[in-house]
Amino acid sequence: MSGTTGTNTASPTGGGDEHLPQPATADIDLVTVLHALGDPVRLTLLLSYADDAEHSCDPRGLGLEHLHKSTVSHHMRVLREAGVTTTRVAGRNRFVRLRRADLDARFPGLLDALLAAAG
Amino acid sequence: MSGTTGTNTASPTGGGDEHLPQPATADIDLVTVLHALGDPVRLTLLLSYADDAEHSCDPRGLGLEHLHKSTVSHHMRVLREAGVTTTRVAGRNRFVRLRRADLDARFPGLLDALLAAAG
Repeated sequence: MSGTTGTNTASPTGGGDEHLPQPATADIDLVTVLHALGDPVRLTLLLSYADDAEHSCDPRGLGLEHLHKSTVSHHMRVLREAGVTTTRVAGRNRFVRLRRADLDARFPGLLDALLAAAG
Repeated sequence: MSGTTGTNTASPTGGGDEHLPQPATADIDLVTVLHALGDPVRLTLLLSYADDAEHSCDPRGLGLEHLHKSTVSHHMRVLREAGVTTTRVAGRNRFVRLRRADLDARFPGLLDALLAAAG
C-alpha cells in the first residue's frame, strides 16, 4: 500500500476504503505461497478467485457451505498473509481479490501453471 | 513402475535395483505436491535435484549439514510420497532423483515455474 495516496488509507472521516495487512509484492515468499496453496480449501478458494473479480467473504458464494465461517475466514487470512489475495474493507463489508499482477511480477508463470494444474 | 519388466523389480537373487513406494504419475496430487514444497528444507532439496542427477541421501552433499539425518530423511520421504522424487535402492545405498518428466506430464509448466521462482 505504500506509495499510494489517499484512497487506500484509513480515514477517520470516512470515504476511503482500506485494505487488510498484506505483504508488499517484493516480500511475497515462495515457500509461504506454496504452503498457503498446499491445502484443498485454499486451492478451491484460489480457483474461485481466478476470475479476478472481488468476492465477498460469504462461504455460500464460494462453494464452501459445509465449513464454518470462522474456518473459511482462517483460510482467507492465510492466503492474504501469503500475498496471494488482497482484502478491501468497505464499511462492514470485506472483498477479496486475487493479486494476479503482483504474483505474476514476483513469480512469472507460476500462477498460470498452478491454475492450469488445479482447474 | 507398472509396465516395466525386470530391472525395477526386487529380486531375491540380486542384480535388479528397486524403488521405494511412490505414486503413479496419474495419481500425483497438486495439493500434496504444493504442501510438500511449502517447506524451506524441501524447496532446497528440490533445487538440489533440479540438475536431474541422482543424489545420495547424505545431508552433507545437499547443503543440509545443520540438520539431523533423520530430519532430512523425513523431508525426502515427503517429497517421494508426493511424487516429486523417486528413490532407487541399490544394495544399502539409496539414490534420489527428480521426477521431472512425470511432473511435466501431470502439471505442464509448473515445475519450470517453481524452479525459476525458487532459483
